[in-house]
Amino acid sequence: MGMLSEGLTQVLIPASALVGIVFALLQWYLVSKVKVSGDSSNGLSDKLIEEEEDGVNNREASIKCAEIQHAISVGATSFLFTQYKYLSVFMCVFAAIIFLFLGSVKGFSTKSEPCTYNKGSLCKPALANAAFSTLAFLLGALTSVLSGFLGMKIATYANARTTLEARKGVGKAFVTAFRSGAVMGFLLSANGLLVLYITIILFKLYYGDDWEGLYESITGYGLGGSSMALFGRVGGGIYTKAADVGADLVGKVERNIPEDDPRNPAVIADNVGDNVGDIAGMGSDLFGSYAESSCAALFVASISSFGISHDYTAMSFPLIISSVGIVVCLVTTLFATDLFEIKDVSEIEPSLKRQLVVSTILMTVGIAMVSFFALPSEFTLFNFGTEKAVKNWHLFFCVSIGLWAGLVIGYTTEYYTSNAYSPVQDVADSCRTGAATNVIFGLALGYKSVIIPIFAIAIAIYVSFSLAAMYGIAVAALGMLSTIATGLAIDAYGPISDNAGGIAEMAGMSHKIRERTDALDAAGNTTAAIGKGFAIGSAALVSLALFGAFVSRAGIKTVDVLTPKVFIGLIVGAMLPYWFSAMTMKSVGSAALKMVEEVRRQFNTIPGLMEGRAKPDYANCVKISTDASLREMIPPGALVMLTPLIAGTLFGVETLAGVLAGSLVSGVQVAISASNTGGAWDNAKKYIEAGASEHAKTLGPKGSDAHKAAVIGDTIGDPLKDTSGPSLNILIKLMAVESLVFAPFFAAHGGLLFKYL
Amino acid sequence: MGMLSEGLTQVLIPASALVGIVFALLQWYLVSKVKVSGDSSNGLSDKLIEEEEDGVNNREASIKCAEIQHAISVGATSFLFTQYKYLSVFMCVFAAIIFLFLGSVKGFSTKSEPCTYNKGSLCKPALANAAFSTLAFLLGALTSVLSGFLGMKIATYANARTTLEARKGVGKAFVTAFRSGAVMGFLLSANGLLVLYITIILFKLYYGDDWEGLYESITGYGLGGSSMALFGRVGGGIYTKAADVGADLVGKVERNIPEDDPRNPAVIADNVGDNVGDIAGMGSDLFGSYAESSCAALFVASISSFGISHDYTAMSFPLIISSVGIVVCLVTTLFATDLFEIKDVSEIEPSLKRQLVVSTILMTVGIAMVSFFALPSEFTLFNFGTEKAVKNWHLFFCVSIGLWAGLVIGYTTEYYTSNAYSPVQDVADSCRTGAATNVIFGLALGYKSVIIPIFAIAIAIYVSFSLAAMYGIAVAALGMLSTIATGLAIDAYGPISDNAGGIAEMAGMSHKIRERTDALDAAGNTTAAIGKGFAIGSAALVSLALFGAFVSRAGIKTVDVLTPKVFIGLIVGAMLPYWFSAMTMKSVGSAALKMVEEVRRQFNTIPGLMEGRAKPDYANCVKISTDASLREMIPPGALVMLTPLIAGTLFGVETLAGVLAGSLVSGVQVAISASNTGGAWDNAKKYIEAGASEHAKTLGPKGSDAHKAAVIGDTIGDPLKDTSGPSLNILIKLMAVESLVFAPFFAAHGGLLFKYL
Repeated sequence: MGMLSEGLTQVLIPASALVGIVFALLQWYLVSKVKVSGDSSNGLSDKLIEEEEDGVNNREASIKCAEIQHAISVGATSFLFTQYKYLSVFMCVFAAIIFLFLGSVKGFSTKSEPCTYNKGSLCKPALANAAFSTLAFLLGALTSVLSGFLGMKIATYANARTTLEARKGVGKAFVTAFRSGAVMGFLLSANGLLVLYITIILFKLYYGDDWEGLYESITGYGLGGSSMALFGRVGGGIYTKAADVGADLVGKVERNIPEDDPRNPAVIADNVGDNVGDIAGMGSDLFGSYAESSCAALFVASISSFGISHDYTAMSFPLIISSVGIVVCLVTTLFATDLFEIKDVSEIEPSLKRQLVVSTILMTVGIAMVSFFALPSEFTLFNFGTEKAVKNWHLFFCVSIGLWAGLVIGYTTEYYTSNAYSPVQDVADSCRTGAATNVIFGLALGYKSVIIPIFAIAIAIYVSFSLAAMYGIAVAALGMLSTIATGLAIDAYGPISDNAGGIAEMAGMSHKIRERTDALDAAGNTTAAIGKGFAIGSAALVSLALFGAFVSRAGIKTVDVLTPKVFIGLIVGAMLPYWFSAMTMKSVGSAALKMVEEVRRQFNTIPGLMEGRAKPDYANCVKISTDASLREMIPPGALVMLTPLIAGTLFGVETLAGVLAGSLVSGVQVAISASNTGGAWDNAKKYIEAGASEHAKTLGPKGSDAHKAAVIGDTIGDPLKDTSGPSLNILIKLMAVESLVFAPFFAAHGGLLFKYL
Repeated sequence: MGMLSEGLTQVLIPASALVGIVFALLQWYLVSKVKVSGDSSNGLSDKLIEEEEDGVNNREASIKCAEIQHAISVGATSFLFTQYKYLSVFMCVFAAIIFLFLGSVKGFSTKSEPCTYNKGSLCKPALANAAFSTLAFLLGALTSVLSGFLGMKIATYANARTTLEARKGVGKAFVTAFRSGAVMGFLLSANGLLVLYITIILFKLYYGDDWEGLYESITGYGLGGSSMALFGRVGGGIYTKAADVGADLVGKVERNIPEDDPRNPAVIADNVGDNVGDIAGMGSDLFGSYAESSCAALFVASISSFGISHDYTAMSFPLIISSVGIVVCLVTTLFATDLFEIKDVSEIEPSLKRQLVVSTILMTVGIAMVSFFALPSEFTLFNFGTEKAVKNWHLFFCVSIGLWAGLVIGYTTEYYTSNAYSPVQDVADSCRTGAATNVIFGLALGYKSVIIPIFAIAIAIYVSFSLAAMYGIAVAALGMLSTIATGLAIDAYGPISDNAGGIAEMAGMSHKIRERTDALDAAGNTTAAIGKGFAIGSAALVSLALFGAFVSRAGIKTVDVLTPKVFIGLIVGAMLPYWFSAMTMKSVGSAALKMVEEVRRQFNTIPGLMEGRAKPDYANCVKISTDASLREMIPPGALVMLTPLIAGTLFGVETLAGVLAGSLVSGVQVAISASNTGGAWDNAKKYIEAGASEHAKTLGPKGSDAHKAAVIGDTIGDPLKDTSGPSLNILIKLMAVESLVFAPFFAAHGGLLFKYL
C-alpha cells in the first residue's frame, strides 16, 4: 500500500477540483471588471495607466463593441443550441444502441456472472454493465457539451473586453484574453474531474466490490465525451471555415477590403465560427481526451493488482495526477497574469511559451510526489493475459515522459508554425513566385513537421509500454494532459484575441489598436497550433491505451500483422483519415462556395454597401454556415461512429484491432501535417502583413503579389488546420473508445461475415 | 506434378521473351517509317490519307521538328549518362555493403551449412550467397538502367514523329505514339524476364540442388532493380518538375505566353524532363516491381514443397505467368494499332481503356491455363513456419484477383482524373472562386480517390493471403503486373504525346495540329494516372509479399502490434512517406525557384527574346535542372536506403517489420492521393482550356480568372503527381526488398541497441 490513505485521497480529489472551479470563477470576476457598455470608466484605477491612451474615452466605440459582442454571442449560442438539438437525438439513439448491444451479450440476463479477471469472484450481470455504460455515456456527453458551451460563453464574454483593454496597451489586453482562457481551462479540467469522481462514487453504491464491472461501465463516460467532441469539432469546424473562407475570398481577394470589415456580410458568421469551432469544439475535444485517458487507465488498473486487491488510493492514481495538475496549473497561471507584465508585443509569445515550460517543470515534481505517496512500491499490472511486476518509480517515468513528450511536440509545433523561425519565413519567401510555390512549400513544411513529434510519441510509447505495459501508455497520455488547464488557457487565448481584433476592426477603432490585437492574434495562431499538437499527441497515446484496453477486454492475445484479417484492417484503417478528410474538406469547400455566392450577391444587390452607407444582411450568412455545418457533419460523423460497429460485427475483433492500429498510425501523421501546414500559411501571411523585418518588407505590403499568394495559402490552410486536421484526433480516439465499450459484444457475437463464409 | 514438362517450360519462357523483343523491334520499325528530316515524304502511301491534310508538305516545320527532337534527345541522353555516373558509384558502394553484411553472417566462412527449410540437406555457404546476391544486385541494377534508357531512347525517337503524323490526323498520330509506347512496354517486360531467366540458369550451375540458396541470392536482382528505380524516379522527377514548374510560372503566369513556347528558356529542359522522369523513371520503377514480385514469389516457392521436391515447372510458375502475359499483351496491342482505327478525338480514351479490359480478360484465360497445366493439382506452401495445403485453382484465384484488382484501380483512377467525369469537372468548377477553392477541392478529390483502390487491394490481399499465404500475395502482385507490357505502352504513350505537343508548338505548327496533340495529351494524362495507380497497387502487393518473405527469412513467427518494439516501428514507418515527400517536394520547390529566377533573368536581359528575334539560352536551364536533381536525389535516396539498415541493425527485425508495415499502409494512401490530386488538377486545367462543353466554356477561355486558378492547381500538382507520389511506391517496395536481402544479417547480428540497453 502507498503512503497516502484512502480517506485523504477522497478529500484530495474533490478538493482540487473545487479549487480549480473557484480559481476559474475568480478569473471570470477579474475579467468582468472590464466594463463593456456606454460607460467609459472601466473600474480599474486610472493610476495604473502609464502610457498615453488611445481612445479610452471613445464612448461610441465602446457602445459599438458591446453591440458586436452581443451579436456574436447570440449567434454562437443560437448555433450551439440548434446543434445540441440534433445531438440530443443522436445521444438517445446511440444510448439505445449501447444498451441493446451490451445487454445482448448475455441475452439480457439479470444473473450475476463469474468475473473475467478476478477469478473466483462473482461480478454483476452484463445487463447492469449495459445500463451503467449507457448512463456513463450520457453523463460524458452532457459534461462534454457543458464544457464546450461554457468555453464559448466566456470567450464571447471576453472578446470585446480584450478589445477595450487593448486601448490601454498590449499588456492589459493580453491579461484579459489570457485570464478568459484560464477560466475555460480550469472550469473544464476541474469539472471533468469532479463529474468523473462523483460518477465513480455513485456507481460504486451499486457495484460495491465488483470493480471490474464498475470501471468497465465508466468507459462509457469517455465515449460520451468524445462522440460529442466529434460533432463539435466537425460541425464547428465546417461552420467557422465556411464563413472564414467565404468572407476572405470575396472580401479580401475580390473587393480588397480588410479582414473583419463590417461591410462584409460574412463577418459576423466568421467571428461566431471562431467561438463555436475553435473554442467549443476544442473544449469538447480535450475534455474527451482527458476523459478517455482517465477511463483507459482506470479500466486497466481495475484488472491489475490494484483492482484485485482493492487498493483505493493506487486505483485512483490517474485522478490524483489530474488533481495535482490543476494545482500546478493554478500556480503557473500566476506567472502570466501577475508575476510578469507584458510591456511589448515581442514578449507575448515568450510569455505563452513560459507557461508551457513552467507547468511542465512543476508538474514533474508533482508526478514524483504522487508516484511515491499514492502507489505501493511494488505491484503488478495486467499485460495481455500475463501480470507484469512494476515499481512505483516506473510509473513516475511513464507519466513524466508523456508530459515531456507533450512539451517537445509543443515546441516543435511552435518552431514550424511561428513566423519567428526560418520554416515559416521560407514559406513566406516562396510567395515571391506565386501561390503555387507557396502551396508546395507549405505542404512540404507540414510533412516535415511530423518527424520530431512522431519520434517523441514513439519514444514515449516505447518507454511507458516497456515499463508498465498498457497502463504505462494510459498514464503517459494523462501526463501529457495533466497540464490541460494551462494548455487550454493558451489555446482559448487564440480565438479570443482573433475575435478581439475583429471587434476592433468592426467598431472602427484606430489602427494602433488593431495592430495590438493583431500581435495578440499572431501569437494566438502559434498557440492554437501548439494546442492542436497537444491534442493530437495526447490523442495518439490515448487511443493506443484504449486500443490496448479494447484488446484486453476482447480477449485477444496478439494482433499479428501477418494474418490477413488484421492486415486488411490495418490498410483500410490507414485509409479512413483520408476518407474522413475528403468529406470534411469538401464540405468546407461547398459551404464556402455557397457563402461566396451569398456575399457576392449582397455586394452586388445592396446599394451603398461598399460605401458603408448600408448594412449587410449578416443573418443570411449565419444561416448558410449553420445549415451547412449541421447537414455536413452527419456523413463524417457516421463514418467514424459506424466503422467500429461494422468492422466488429461483420469482421470481428482482429480486423477491428487492425483498423484501430491503422487509423492511429496514419491519422496522427495526417492530423499533424494538416494543422501545421495551415498554421504556417496563416503566419506566413501575417509575417508579410506585419512587415517587421527587412525580408518581410520586401514581400509586402498588403495587396502585393506575394501577399495575394500568401492569402491563397492561408485560405487553403483554413479547412486543413481548423476542420479536418483537428477532427482527425477525435476520429482515432473515438473509434478506439467505441471499440472498447462494445468489446464484450464483439467478442461474443462479432465477425459474422467470416463465420458464415 | 503438373502437366507441363520441364523441357517445355525451359522453351516456353525464353521463347515468349524473344517473341516480345521481336514484336518490340517490329513496332520500332513501323514507327521509324515516319521520316523526320527535310524530306516531307513519309514513306506511307498517300492513298491512305483521306482528309485534307494540314501542312504535310511544310518542309520547314519538318526540319524544325528534327532539330527540336535532336535537342531533346541530346539533353535526355546527357542527363541520364551524368546520372548513371553517380549511380555507378552508388552501385559499387552498395554492392560492397551487401557483400560485407551478408558475408559476415557466418563470419565469411566457406563451409557448407545445413539448410534452414529443407531439413537434413546441406546448403551452400553464406559467403556464396553473399557473392551471388551481390552479383544479382548488379545485374538487376544494370537491367533497370537499361530499361529506363531504352524507354527514353524510343520516346525521344517517337515524339517528333507523332507530331508529324498529327498533320495527317489524330488517328495516325495516336498509332505512332501508341506503337512507341509498345516498344518500351515489350522491350522492358521481355528483357526483364529474359535476364532473370538466364541469371537463374547460370546461378544454378553453381547452386545445383540448393534452391534455397539460389532463390535467396536471386532476391538481389529485385533490390538492384528497385534501387536504380528510386534514383531514376526521384532524380528524374525533380528534373522534370523543376523545369515544368519554372517554365509555367514565368511563361504562362507572368509573361502570358503559351505552354512549350520556344521563347521560354526552360522549354527544352521541360521536354527533356518528360523523357527522363516520366519515361525512364517509370520504366525503371515498373521493372523494379516486376523483378521484385517475381523474386518474392520465387523465394517463397523455394522454401515450399515446389522447392523441396524440386518441381521445376511449378517453381517457374511466376515466370510462366509473365511469359503468357507477354503473348496476351501482344494480341491486345493489335486492338489499338490494327483492329480499330481512331477517327475522332473522342475515341482516344475509350481505345486506351479498351486495352486494359481486353488484356485483363485475355490474361484471365491465360492464368487459368497456366494454373492448370503448370501446377500439380495439390501441393503445400510455406506459411510462417507451417505448411499450408493448396490446390492449383487456388492459385488461379490469387493471380486473377491481383489482375482484376489492377483493373479496378485503373478504372477508379480514370474516374477521378479524367475530365469526362464529375470529380474533375467539380474541381474545374471550383476555380470560379479562385485558386484556394481549387486546391481544397483537389486535395479532397485525391483523398477520396483512395477509398476504392484500398478496398480493392484489401480484398485482393484477403483472398490471396487466405488461399495461398504469402505466395498468394506474391502471385497476386505478379497478376497485376502480368499485363505490364500493355500498361507500360499506354503509360509511355502519355509523355510521348506531351512531347509531341511541345514540338508542334516550338516548331510553329498550326493551331489545328496543336489541338490534336493536346487531345492525345489529355488522354495521356489520364493514362499516366492509371499507370501510376497500377504502379502503386502492385507496389502495395509486392511489398507485402516481400515483407512476408522477409519475416520468413528473418525467422519471426508473429509481428504483434501490441509489443512496443513493433508498434514504434509501425508509427515511425507510417511517418516515413511524409518525411520523404517533404524532401522531394521541397527539392522541386527550391529547384523551381532557381529556374524561375534564371528564366526571368533571361527574359529581362536578352534583348528581343519576347519578340522572338533572339534565342534563349536553353542550356543554362538544362544545367539548373540537372544539378538540382543530382544533388537533391541523394537525401531522399539515403533516407530510403539507410532506414532498413539502421532499423534492422540497431533495433532488430521486429521493429523493422513494424517499419515496413507502417510505411506500406501509410505510403499507399499518400501515393494514391498525391498522384490523383495532381492528375485531376492537370485535367481540370485542360478541361477549361479545351472548352468542349457548355460548362467548360463558362469557365474559360485561356487567361480567364478561373483558368489562372486552374494553372496554379496544375503547378502544385506537378511535384505531387510526378515526383513525390510515384517515388513513394518505390519507397515501400525498396525498403521491403532491402530488408529481405539483409534479413540473414539482421537475424544474426541485428538489434544492437536493445541488446545493450
